[in-house]
Amino acid sequence: MHDQEKSPALGVADFIRLLDDHMPQVRAGGFTVLEMGWGRCVMQVKATELTSRAGGTIAGPTMFALADLALYGAVLSQIGEVPLAVTSDMNIHFLRKPPLRPLRAEARILKPGKRLAYGEILIRSIDDPVPVAHATGTYAIPSG
Amino acid sequence: MHDQEKSPALGVADFIRLLDDHMPQVRAGGFTVLEMGWGRCVMQVKATELTSRAGGTIAGPTMFALADLALYGAVLSQIGEVPLAVTSDMNIHFLRKPPLRPLRAEARILKPGKRLAYGEILIRSIDDPVPVAHATGTYAIPSG
Amino acid sequence: MHDQEKSPALGVADFIRLLDDHMPQVRAGGFTVLEMGWGRCVMQVKATELTSRAGGTIAGPTMFALADLALYGAVLSQIGEVPLAVTSDMNIHFLRKPPLRPLRAEARILKPGKRLAYGEILIRSIDDPVPVAHATGTYAIPSG
Amino acid sequence: MHDQEKSPALGVADFIRLLDDHMPQVRAGGFTVLEMGWGRCVMQVKATELTSRAGGTIAGPTMFALADLALYGAVLSQIGEVPLAVTSDMNIHFLRKPPLRPLRAEARILKPGKRLAYGEILIRSIDDPVPVAHATGTYAIPSG
Repeated sequence: MHDQEKSPALGVADFIRLLDDHMPQVRAGGFTVLEMGWGRCVMQVKATELTSRAGGTIAGPTMFALADLALYGAVLSQIGEVPLAVTSDMNIHFLRKPPLRPLRAEARILKPGKRLAYGEILIRSIDDPVPVAHATGTYAIPSG
Repeated sequence: MHDQEKSPALGVADFIRLLDDHMPQVRAGGFTVLEMGWGRCVMQVKATELTSRAGGTIAGPTMFALADLALYGAVLSQIGEVPLAVTSDMNIHFLRKPPLRPLRAEARILKPGKRLAYGEILIRSIDDPVPVAHATGTYAIPSG
Repeated sequence: MHDQEKSPALGVADFIRLLDDHMPQVRAGGFTVLEMGWGRCVMQVKATELTSRAGGTIAGPTMFALADLALYGAVLSQIGEVPLAVTSDMNIHFLRKPPLRPLRAEARILKPGKRLAYGEILIRSIDDPVPVAHATGTYAIPSG
Repeated sequence: MHDQEKSPALGVADFIRLLDDHMPQVRAGGFTVLEMGWGRCVMQVKATELTSRAGGTIAGPTMFALADLALYGAVLSQIGEVPLAVTSDMNIHFLRKPPLRPLRAEARILKPGKRLAYGEILIRSIDDPVPVAHATGTYAIPSG
């Protein structure tokens, strides 16, 4: 069986509940979880006053937050509910200024791990296949 | 005369006004500007419900936003008021989990430029000299 | 027509000739070009005394050089022969220690550009699909 | 006593011997160790046919290797002789094209650690204070 076909260790509803419990500002900020697969997570964020910036575009920190959360989801899809998994490093390149429309991020794990998991995230405007940002990052997973 | 002694091309009050005009969510989110020097900017963020996460610590995206804003200030300190300068890449390493106290970021420019400026940012909890995060990044400056 | 089906602006033989002319140490160091596609380049490096390190594994700088060269090839596959295109930033994560066997890197462009092109590179041991390193980077393309 | 004043856990002569034993290509490639301090290492590389590239400048992979080795030295300056410490990630920005003269890198540790150590590296041409490249990176230290 292909990895992609494995069921995720955490589903959409459970990941949303975990975010609501531990980071209520996520849902309040307009972020939602669309899909969870094994080593894979798709999230979306609305374009609002909170998430925009000068120039009629989405703010960089909003895109970073979206990438970080999607990677968190992809990590938890393989290890289950571990709220204290934390980002240890993240690299993001902003490729184009997105318009003020919802952004969607797709994260996938390139190296699963018990202590460190590494993956990449592509961010696009909905209804546009061209990437607006690309990120890579590592999550540290607490032992025990 | 030393570079560090040059007056910044944008002062604290003008940088705050620019942020209020173009990104009102910055001040609303608890971010403030403390110092501007030539190629240098110090900013601070409060620890609030908006900026924290699971584990009694400040959220990674809050630290990213703080780093990004401080670097923006450091860039503008050399080129003046250019609201449309945008981040092109950012790399951040989270070194320690900060406690729920205000964080302070100090950005400094390592390579000024007309089109691209590059710098680094150290983030610490106030009253603690040990860094909790370190970032590097590039800003793209629109021509004309 | 799909982008992937476009002919590359620089073929394998021409890219090898360009490397031999401008960086003879590349071929001498055991690096070879295997494939060029539109926005895509596959390169390989031998495991030799020059490229190995403590622990019976390939040295990190060898993997960096392989990633950098493959991205160079992918950039030139879209803009043709521009020897003075140069790396402006590169981020590499080493995911597993590779054995002392040839390494293969596949680079692909995520954002083509006239001035800046951005892409990613996956490195694997030959005959093993699991990645040993992943990199992302930007090339600056001289105007005119 | 200040950290900077502590004696390094590995001196210049011992670091050179370790490199000669485990990575003889380092010295053969024109790299030398100039200084070791606590959490600090200065290395240099010659400008030769091996280390140059198109455009009369030092090759990017040479600068990466110099940064990686200097950070390795800075890590070992705090943990002593651990040949199997390995780079887990590295981010490098090339700021200016250096002329064909020796390059010097100064690495310093920003976060020492038993399992992961993080630091930054500034690279300059000798006799020129302006940085030509800046890197940050993490070393993973084997347990036991």
